[in-house]
Formats: sequence, structure tokens, C-alpha cells
Amino acid sequence: MTAALANDLLLRALLRQPTERTPVWMMRQAGRYLPEYRATRARAGSFLAMCTNPQYACEVTLQPLDRFPLDAAILFSDILTIPHAMELGLEFEAGEGPKIRRPVRSTADVDALFVPDPSRELRYVVDAVSLIRRELGGRVPLIGFAGSPWTVGTYMVEGGSSKNFAHIKGMIYDAPGLLHRMLDVVTRATIDYLNAQVEAGAQAVMVFDTWGGALSPARYREFSLNYMARIVEGLTREREGRRVPVVLFTKGGGAWLDRMADAGADALGVDWTTDLAEARRITGGRVALQGNLDPCVLYGSPEVIREEVARVLESYGPGHGHVFNLGHGIHPDVKPEHAGAMVAAVHELSPQYHPGSES
Amino acid sequence: MTAALANDLLLRALLRQPTERTPVWMMRQAGRYLPEYRATRARAGSFLAMCTNPQYACEVTLQPLDRFPLDAAILFSDILTIPHAMELGLEFEAGEGPKIRRPVRSTADVDALFVPDPSRELRYVVDAVSLIRRELGGRVPLIGFAGSPWTVGTYMVEGGSSKNFAHIKGMIYDAPGLLHRMLDVVTRATIDYLNAQVEAGAQAVMVFDTWGGALSPARYREFSLNYMARIVEGLTREREGRRVPVVLFTKGGGAWLDRMADAGADALGVDWTTDLAEARRITGGRVALQGNLDPCVLYGSPEVIREEVARVLESYGPGHGHVFNLGHGIHPDVKPEHAGAMVAAVHELSPQYHPGSES
Repeated sequence: MTAALANDLLLRALLRQPTERTPVWMMRQAGRYLPEYRATRARAGSFLAMCTNPQYACEVTLQPLDRFPLDAAILFSDILTIPHAMELGLEFEAGEGPKIRRPVRSTADVDALFVPDPSRELRYVVDAVSLIRRELGGRVPLIGFAGSPWTVGTYMVEGGSSKNFAHIKGMIYDAPGLLHRMLDVVTRATIDYLNAQVEAGAQAVMVFDTWGGALSPARYREFSLNYMARIVEGLTREREGRRVPVVLFTKGGGAWLDRMADAGADALGVDWTTDLAEARRITGGRVALQGNLDPCVLYGSPEVIREEVARVLESYGPGHGHVFNLGHGIHPDVKPEHAGAMVAAVHELSPQYHPGSES
Repeated sequence: MTAALANDLLLRALLRQPTERTPVWMMRQAGRYLPEYRATRARAGSFLAMCTNPQYACEVTLQPLDRFPLDAAILFSDILTIPHAMELGLEFEAGEGPKIRRPVRSTADVDALFVPDPSRELRYVVDAVSLIRRELGGRVPLIGFAGSPWTVGTYMVEGGSSKNFAHIKGMIYDAPGLLHRMLDVVTRATIDYLNAQVEAGAQAVMVFDTWGGALSPARYREFSLNYMARIVEGLTREREGRRVPVVLFTKGGGAWLDRMADAGADALGVDWTTDLAEARRITGGRVALQGNLDPCVLYGSPEVIREEVARVLESYGPGHGHVFNLGHGIHPDVKPEHAGAMVAAVHELSPQYHPGSES
């Protein structure tokens, strides 16, 4: 049995239903900018140890909620859990990005891929979701997530972070069929993985396409958006008597919001390089929008942060269907009070954009 | 006296005048992908030694022209020559990006900035331009260039390459007046610098705004586009009886082409994340367009490269005002023959898009 949800603003906003104010959460809200997060990480010993231990994952997921009046929790995890479960040798070296020790480049490499069983190889994530749901006690909804197949694929093929995506783009042009086969496996794995998160208690789901913006428009549709649409299609959309909203987010995808709005998701994430007014015009009420304060605004003073929050709210304008967020993850060197100033400003300034919902 | 220009396709295309085929050049065409470039660099000892020596700069500028039938030479130099001339301590460490030893962050730092005299502190560039023009002997036009004030400013404030632009974005929000003062000095320096290049023989000019795409739309206009427009306004636009075309290029600026088209430039660079058809529609004949093959296409086979060149030409469609280029600089690990395949494909496939210019 799960506790009734005390604050369902996020779920309503993602479904474009009336809310009395704009809900707010932050990408990477459980992160290094919080001293309590750094303390947990020190105890865990490493980032991967923290991800793979449900107790630690639960602990850091809840930390930002204890500090700020946020309207959602997001599972603490990593987008590379799937390649990790595929036994490709995921490592996080101190001070560097993730490494995949056995990158996927040949036909044999793709042939050897398998769809992990979430209840076995990804059991630690499912257990973390259950535990977090229990510990949340219905305070706010819990968001589950995964990387987009294209984005996860870039790490699988490049063997880690990349600037130019030389190997995977080489595959686009020289071996597109092989790349499609790989993305198909990752897509099926992601559907199972997200559905297991929903089954365990995730009340909304977000797909992070961090690197879709590196593609040309036609290749984006073919190698990224298509697979995200397949994920949306394969997801459990109803659970505990409520719809489970799905958010798609392509960083740098502002020019493609029109196409993205037809992928079947309930909401789209928008980064700060696109005005929400423009995003709203383009998507024309087909989806809710989530975003889009430049994370660097949080380097400014609390007064500046308040002004910039006001700008974002004004850019979206009156009406429902907006979830306030940063346009990308919070930077590790931001002062926690500055994140607090942002959250407070959304609480204070957003009700005026929701007339007739004061009930 | 200078030799008559044997091939003026680039200049005509940038001014949207009829041409019998689409001219082609490559950003960073004088670069590490060429073994002859690596040999010159080895002789010079370092990247900076190569930039600051007119003989070396001339030598590497001409190398790609001796290999491929390109329609333009572009001055071999770096966008950080201006901070170098401002004595901010530019260094290129092996395997790392550029470093600025004395970053500009305080009021005192900005007060200490000065506008370098191109005939003194940047003499090596002016001399390189004169020498290249002489050595070109009128084969193709020579493009001069500079970084945009915003982009050069990111290195000046951050002290080198950056992922998040924490310091300069902190200034946007906490000390916008100070940042504007710094950008004003860089803008005046850039105008003098580019005019000196034109005076010495540059026949077209390009402004590279590599990092404008990291800004929100409003901040892009305020902190990057405004200063590029001031540069355009300050440039010598007529020389040797010909108009000197100006190209503005903001990487990741596809959504802002409409505003950019009003900045007074003759042409806009377009990266591969925007379709040329869409760019042409948005800019509606106000400017020529330069681009936009994904540099990663050159990792593909010559057959694939030809197909992708065909796609770009088809995307721009029939008519004048297109300069073929990559959407960003050529990657260092591309095979030279692949660059050659791209150039050959433009020669072969583009005449059909220029009907009525067979004369």
C-alpha cells in the first residue's frame, strides 16, 4: 500500500491540468552542489557504489526535498545503468567522465548485446525506486528516468564521453543498419527498464537525450526521436489509477520541438536556448513544457535569480502546462542557497499565472 | 599591385550574384588532418610559433589549395590573437586547449585592457595576409577572420576553454555593465584588426561565434549579436573596387538566423543542425548562406560523402547565394582523400543548381 499523494502539482502540470501554481524541481537536484550529497558519496566510496546501493540512492534522492519545497523527487541513478547491466564495463574514474571498457563497434559486438532483465541485472534500481516511494510517504511524486537510446548509444560506441562522436557518426554513414540494430536492443532494454521503474512506484518518467542535438535534423529523427517515440509507445501509461506522464528532453533540440510534440509524450523538456513563448507557440497545446532557466543563472545573486525566474514564468505566460526547471542539470559549484532562492521565487511568483485555480 | 582574381566564385556567391556552380571551402582547411600541415607545425615547434610567423602561416594557408580545387583560402591564424596582443598571457599546452594566464574578471582587469594597434602588436597577422595574397597570385580570394567578441570574451574571462562558462555567465547576471565594457574594448579591437586584414589584402571577412549558442535568446542578442553587428558596421566594405563580403557564423545559432540576417552581414554560416532549406526560408533572400555538411560525414566512405553532399545541395535548392562548407571545422582525424571527395562532389553536382549561368 502506498500513501496518498499530498502534492500532485507535477503530475497535473505534466498533463496540462489546472494547478494553483507552477510546480518546480531541478535536473540533478540530488547532486554535488549539496554538502550532504558529498558526505554520502564519501561514505559510499564512489559514484557507482552510490548508484548501485538502494539505501544510498534513496538517501541522496531525498536530500534536496529536505532542504527545498520541491514538487518532485527524481530517482538518483545514471543514464549508463543499461550498458552497465549489459556488462560493457562501466567505470567512473575520478575527475573524468564515464568510461565503457568494451565499446560496441563491430557486428560481433552488436550481436553479443542482450536486453537486461530489470529484476535481475537492474535489481538495485528497482529496489531503490520501491524504497524511495516508501520513504517519500506521498510527499511528492517520484520521477523515474532513462537516457535516450541515441545518447546511451554514444557512450556505448565511443567508449565514454565524446566531443565529435566520430565512431557513432561513422556508423551512421557507413553502417546505419548495424547502428539501428544496436539502438533497437537499447530501446527494448529501456522500455523494460522504465516499466520496471513504474511497476516499482515511479509516477512519471523522463527520457534524457543529452546528445541528440549533435545530429542533423534528418538524422535526429532517424536515430534519436524515432527510438524515443518507440519507448513512449511501449511504456505503461496508467498505474495506481493515474496516468503516468512521460517527458522527452533533447538538449539543443529547440528547433525540433514541433516533431517532438508528435512523439506521443505528455511533456517536452526545453533548454535555455529556446524561449518558452516560442516553444509554446510551436507545440500549440499538444504537450506540457518543462524548463528552462539557464543553470548559470544560479551563479548570480538571489535578486538576479528572482528576476530571471520571473522572466521564465513570463515567457511561458498565463495558463497551465508548465513545470519550472533548469534548462539542464544544476552545476556542482552552485551555492545551495541559490537553488533555494530559485525554488522560493517560483512559489512566490507563479500563482499569478494560474488564475481561476485558487480553489 | 595585385594579380587579377582568376576565380571569384566565392565573392559572387557571398553577394548572391550568379555563379556557374557552388563555391566550396572548408573551415579549418589548413589543419591537422593534412600531413604537410603536421610537418610544418613540427618545424615551427608549436602552434603559436606557427601562427605568429608569417612564412609558416602562409605556407599552411596554401597547403589545402595545392591538394584540392578549393574556391577560397582562409588566413591561418587563431581567434585568440587579440587577447594575445592584449598581453593576457596566451598559451597552448600540448593536448589541451588554449589557456589565458591572466583572465579578465575584475573592474581593474577590464580597466587595464587596451585596443591593440594591428600594425604593431598584430603585425605578424597583417604581414601574413600580405604574403598570402602575394603567394596566391589571384588564384582564389583570401578570407580574413576574427572571433566574435562574445566568443573571444569567454576565453578571456574563463581563462581558457570552458564547459559551463561559469565566470562569464556570472558576469552576465551579476556585473553586466562590466562585461559590456569588456566586450566593447574587444569589439573595437576586432574592427581595427579586421580592417587591417582587409587593408593588407583580405577579400572577404568572417566572424566566428563558436560559443554564442550557449546563451539564451535574449542574452545572445545582447551579448553576442549586438557586438557582431557593431563589427559589421565598422568594417571597410569596399576595397580594390570590389565589395568585401562579411560572413557571421554562430555555432548552434540556427534558431536565431532571422535576427542574424538583420545584422548587416552579406552571408551567414549555418551549422549542420539546421536544414539549409529552413535557413533559406527564414532568411528569405536577405543574406547568402554558407554550410553545412556535418564534419563527421567525412568519416564515411567517398560514396557516402557524395550522397551527403548531394543532400546539402538539394536542401539549399536551385539558385544562387550558397557557399558550400562544413558545418564546423574539419576534424583532425579525417583522411585527406575524404575531404577531396567532398570538394569533387561539389564541383560535379552543383552546376545543376545554377541554371542559366553556363556562360
